[in-house]
Amino acid sequence: MRIMVQKYGGTSVKGLERMRLVLARIQKAHQEGFKVVVALSAMSGETNRLLDMAKEFSPNPDPAELDVLVTTGEQASVALFAMLCKDAGLRARSLLGFQIPITTNSNFCRARIMDIDTQRLRGLLEDYDVLVVAGFQGVDCLGRLTTLGRGGSDTTGVALAAALEAEVCEIYTDVNGVYTTDPNLCSNARKLDRISYDEMLEFSSMGAKVLQIRSVEFAKKFNVPVRVRSTFTDDPGTLVTLEDTEMEDVLVSGIAYDKDQCRITVRNVMDRPGVAAAIFAPIAEAGILVDMIIQNTGREGRTDMTFTISRGNLDKTLAILEKLKPEIGAAEIQHDTNVCKVSVIGVGMRSHSGVASMMFTILKKENINILMIATSEIKITCLIEEKYLELAVRTLHDAFGLSQAPTPAC
Amino acid sequence: MRIMVQKYGGTSVKGLERMRLVLARIQKAHQEGFKVVVALSAMSGETNRLLDMAKEFSPNPDPAELDVLVTTGEQASVALFAMLCKDAGLRARSLLGFQIPITTNSNFCRARIMDIDTQRLRGLLEDYDVLVVAGFQGVDCLGRLTTLGRGGSDTTGVALAAALEAEVCEIYTDVNGVYTTDPNLCSNARKLDRISYDEMLEFSSMGAKVLQIRSVEFAKKFNVPVRVRSTFTDDPGTLVTLEDTEMEDVLVSGIAYDKDQCRITVRNVMDRPGVAAAIFAPIAEAGILVDMIIQNTGREGRTDMTFTISRGNLDKTLAILEKLKPEIGAAEIQHDTNVCKVSVIGVGMRSHSGVASMMFTILKKENINILMIATSEIKITCLIEEKYLELAVRTLHDAFGLSQAPTPAC
Repeated sequence: MRIMVQKYGGTSVKGLERMRLVLARIQKAHQEGFKVVVALSAMSGETNRLLDMAKEFSPNPDPAELDVLVTTGEQASVALFAMLCKDAGLRARSLLGFQIPITTNSNFCRARIMDIDTQRLRGLLEDYDVLVVAGFQGVDCLGRLTTLGRGGSDTTGVALAAALEAEVCEIYTDVNGVYTTDPNLCSNARKLDRISYDEMLEFSSMGAKVLQIRSVEFAKKFNVPVRVRSTFTDDPGTLVTLEDTEMEDVLVSGIAYDKDQCRITVRNVMDRPGVAAAIFAPIAEAGILVDMIIQNTGREGRTDMTFTISRGNLDKTLAILEKLKPEIGAAEIQHDTNVCKVSVIGVGMRSHSGVASMMFTILKKENINILMIATSEIKITCLIEEKYLELAVRTLHDAFGLSQAPTPAC
Repeated sequence: MRIMVQKYGGTSVKGLERMRLVLARIQKAHQEGFKVVVALSAMSGETNRLLDMAKEFSPNPDPAELDVLVTTGEQASVALFAMLCKDAGLRARSLLGFQIPITTNSNFCRARIMDIDTQRLRGLLEDYDVLVVAGFQGVDCLGRLTTLGRGGSDTTGVALAAALEAEVCEIYTDVNGVYTTDPNLCSNARKLDRISYDEMLEFSSMGAKVLQIRSVEFAKKFNVPVRVRSTFTDDPGTLVTLEDTEMEDVLVSGIAYDKDQCRITVRNVMDRPGVAAAIFAPIAEAGILVDMIIQNTGREGRTDMTFTISRGNLDKTLAILEKLKPEIGAAEIQHDTNVCKVSVIGVGMRSHSGVASMMFTILKKENINILMIATSEIKITCLIEEKYLELAVRTLHDAFGLSQAPTPAC
C-alpha cells in the first residue's frame, strides 16, 4: 500500500473554491495509486473567531474548555471536505482526533502527541481511498479533547506520516516553500530547493511561520521527508530532509529575524553563586520563555544580568523581578522593546569558521550596533535596534550571496 | 444525591447575556442542593448556518459528514458555558456525546438513543457540581458522530433525566409553556398548568414546536416528569406528566394545526387487493411520511385514493406516482397545496363521546368545508382549506371554552 500524507493550512481550505483545488490534488494522488491521508486546518480566520468568542465569555478561559471550543474549527473543515470527496466518487470519510485516536498528554492548548493508533488507520485505509483527518487536535487518556498549539496541524500531518511510514508528507500552504529570508522584506529572497531539519528548526524557532517547530522535531526524529509547497501553484516547493554533504558546502542558507523581542537588564545584582537561578527560576515557573541571556563579568561583587523575552510577557516578567529585588540585591531594572533579533543560519557553519566575524563586519559597515550575541552550532544571532531590521536583513542577504543558487563545490 | 436535569434551547444560549441568565438558574439549583446536568442546544441560528454551508458544498450532503459538521454547534455552546460556570466558582465541565457516551444507532441525522452510560455519569457527578452536556448528539457503536434530528436536544435532556432517575427535568425555551393553542393565532390562548404525555404527543406531532416528539415518547416510556418553561420569566411553566382523573374530566385540552400539508388524489386506480400497498410501499421506501389516507368506496372496479404528505415531499411523491401509473392503472393524479390540518386534542375524549360531531358543527357554522377527517383515541383532525385556518382555530378555541381554566367536576 502506497501512502501519501498531505496537510493543508487554513488559507487552502477557506471556502468551496479553494477546497476544490485541494480535491484536485488528492484526486491526482489517488490516480497515481496512493492512499491519501489528508490533515486539514480550520478555515483561516476561524480559530481566531473562536478565540475571540472565548475571550468575550471569560477573561481567562479554562484551557480544557478552550480546546473543546477551538477543535470545532477543524471538525467543520473535515466534514465539508469529506462531503466533497464523496461527491467526487472517492471512498472517503472524516476522522476526528478521538476517532483514530491521536492520543496526547493532558497539557491542554499545547498538548504533545503520545501515540497514534496505526493499526486502526491501516485498517481504515483498506476500506477508504481518502481519510480526512482533523489537524491540531487529539484526545488525552481520559477522553478529553486537546489541541497541539498554534500551527499544530503541521505536527498532525508529520506525525501521521511517521506513524504510517508514508512515502511523502506534503505540507500545503500559501507560499511556494522556504525562502532564504522573508520575501516581504527582501525582494530577491530565493526559494530553497532543500533544507536540513536542523536549519528548518532554527528558521521555525525564529518565528518563520512556514512550519510549526514541533512538526520539524517530529520529522527529524522519525526521518520523515517533508515537502513544503503551495496549494495554488505547481512549484515543487522545498524539501525538508536529512543533512547531506552538499548542504554542508553552503556556508549560510538563510537569514531569519524575530521582531517579538524585548530586552531586560537587571543592574547590580549580587555576583554570587545561585543568583542566576534566583532570577530565572520564578520566570520559568510563570511559563515565560527566556531566550538570550548575558551575564557581564562582575565588578566589586556586583554584576549585570541581561536577557530577552517576547513582548507579550514583559509586564508579567517585570512584576516578578520587582518582587525579587530585595532577594537578589538588584539596584535597577531596565527594559527596552525597540529591539529585534536577526540570525544567519546554515549547517555549513559546522565545518567552516569565520561566519560570525563576517556577520559582525557586515553589520558594522552599515553602522548597526550589536546589543547582544548568541551562537549555536548552525546559527549566529544578534540583537539589534528594531529600526535597523530591514537594513540588516537585506545587507546580510546580499553579502552572503543568498539570492544566487549555490554552485556545487568542485 | 439529588439530581436535576435542565435543558436549554437555542434562544436561551445565544450570546453571553442570555447564558448568564442560564448560569443564574443553575447556581440557584446548586444552592438548593442539586447536582445539575445541563443539556444545551446550539446557539439559535447556528445549526441553520452550518446546514446552509453544507448545502453550498454538496447538493446532497453525506449524512454522516453532515452530523460531524452540525455537532460543532452544540460543542461550542457547552465549551463556552462550562467556562462561565468555572469562572463562577462551580466545579463544572463539558461533556460531548461520545465522552459519556450517549450511544445511538447509526441512523445519521435522525439517530435514536440506544444507551447512556449512567455509571460513568454518576461517577462524574461525585466530582462535579455541574455537567454541561452537548444536546442533539451521540455516537454510534463504531465511534462515528450522530445527531438525533431537529429538536433532538429535548430528547437528550429527557433521556439523561431517565437514565439518572433525576428528580426533575426542566426544558427551558423562549415560551412560558404549552398553550391551549398557538398564541400567535389566538390572543386568548391559555397556558396549561399540566398536560398528559399522550396529549403532548399529539400536540408535538402536529408541529407544535415546544417539545420534540421523541422526547415526549421517552418521557412517557420512563415516566419522567417534564416541566416546560421559559428561561426569561419566573412562570412555573407546564408540567408534562402521567394522565390523571382530573385531566380526563376536561373534554378538549387544546387546538393544534399544521400548515405544512399537501393533499394528493390518485383517481380511478384498480380496486383490488394490494393496490394500497403498491402505492404506499414505494413512497415509504423513499422515506416520505404519509399522514392521512382515505380510500373511497369503489365503483365499477375503480376507486380513488387520497392522502396527505408534507409540502417538501410533493415533487418526489408525484414523480414516484407518475412511474406507478401503469401498474396501478391510475387515470389521473391531482394535488392541492392550499390545505391545512386542524385538530382538537384531549384525553377526555376517551370517556366522552360527541366531540367529533361538535367539531363538525362548529366548522359548519362558519361555512368551513371539511376535506378529510381522521380520528385517534384522543384527537380529531380535519383537513380544511388553508385560508380558513385562523378562523377555524379561533372558533374551535372559543366554542370549546379553552380560554377559561376548567372547573373541576363536582
